Amino acid sequence: MKGMKVMAQEVEVMESVYARNEQMAVQLNRALTQKRVFTINVMGAPGVGKTSSIIPMVKRLPEVSFVIEGDIESDIDTKKMEELGIRTVQINTGGACHLDSPFIADAVSELALEKGYLFIENIGNLVCPAEFEIGEHVKMLISTVTEGSDKPYKYPLAFEKADIILLNKCDLLDYVDFDLKFFMDGVRKLNPSVPVFETSGKTGVGYDEAVAWIVQKAKSVIKE
Amino acid sequence: MKGMKVMAQEVEVMESVYARNEQMAVQLNRALTQKRVFTINVMGAPGVGKTSSIIPMVKRLPEVSFVIEGDIESDIDTKKMEELGIRTVQINTGGACHLDSPFIADAVSELALEKGYLFIENIGNLVCPAEFEIGEHVKMLISTVTEGSDKPYKYPLAFEKADIILLNKCDLLDYVDFDLKFFMDGVRKLNPSVPVFETSGKTGVGYDEAVAWIVQKAKSVIKE
Repeated sequence: MKGMKVMAQEVEVMESVYARNEQMAVQLNRALTQKRVFTINVMGAPGVGKTSSIIPMVKRLPEVSFVIEGDIESDIDTKKMEELGIRTVQINTGGACHLDSPFIADAVSELALEKGYLFIENIGNLVCPAEFEIGEHVKMLISTVTEGSDKPYKYPLAFEKADIILLNKCDLLDYVDFDLKFFMDGVRKLNPSVPVFETSGKTGVGYDEAVAWIVQKAKSVIKE
Repeated sequence: MKGMKVMAQEVEVMESVYARNEQMAVQLNRALTQKRVFTINVMGAPGVGKTSSIIPMVKRLPEVSFVIEGDIESDIDTKKMEELGIRTVQINTGGACHLDSPFIADAVSELALEKGYLFIENIGNLVCPAEFEIGEHVKMLISTVTEGSDKPYKYPLAFEKADIILLNKCDLLDYVDFDLKFFMDGVRKLNPSVPVFETSGKTGVGYDEAVAWIVQKAKSVIKE
């Protein structure tokens, strides 16, 4: 009985955490829209190529881009961004498995944002980030041919919530057992109309098309 | 002020969740040792090849092996195990990002365990599973050459807590930019003596050596 009481308290506390996060996310989204900063929450498992996809997209976008780098520890990716002249703020969560709105509110206040694009690279995790709104206009999910084609079936929430999916590391397609039909069937069951772009951070394939989609979407969200 | 009060309450509730889990993990570990079931908590990001590494290890072990499959949804991997005649119980967490001791206690009571080996395939997540003891004798971390060599620096806890590491997908080494020295330097800073075996679920390389380590370790933990 004592166990059950604690469980009820846990549920209550978790609900209050989610509610506070959602409330702050709505405020963040409103502020970013007013500043005409189109914001992309980039999610995916560790090592799917979030940084190495953000870089070719930033290079192709017609306006200035900003980056918020989320990591548990380290600033390896921020250094890569800064070497390319991309204005970047590092968040180290120190253990937390996802970014939330309070983290983003702090990072946004550090960046002198102007009209353009903001990429938020979430923690490498295909589970938890999908549960937290962080003020973004769209969620970009990066999956890879090396992870295997069963990922939509095993981690449905991220695929269900994605506004755009990059299927990355396509340069390795010949060397792995990846069943594209099985993957796409899984995606379509969860998310019938999400655009899926086949990309390669190594060769640069697919980012022209992904960026065209982002620019179009930004126009429809941020009224000029 | 209200926010701060809720934060304190959150910390308190999380501490009680961890404490209850740890307590149950100690009991589970004792029961598994008494039954002479050497138990391996298999952790790693999505798609690193947890299932496709457990299968070649089970085939090489000298005694019966059991498997507990942890997934948010789906029973794809359990079906693979059952087709091979491996006694397997599926846990679907329905959203939870890691396995905990209550899940394992239920699954263990479903398996008619006997002297041998138990592999617990955790949720594909390089962050959260490392925080929860689940009664195991050793933690096996699977990392891959396709994820990139910076993973120990970005996700330190899993590397720090690992008793054995498999560096999987070594068959793809020629096609990716993987810096083995940088990876191993990162591992050694966190975990000076952990054995690291280079494996390939595709070619079968490395599992003889990994299984020899498991058998040796099991002998030292489970007194014959």
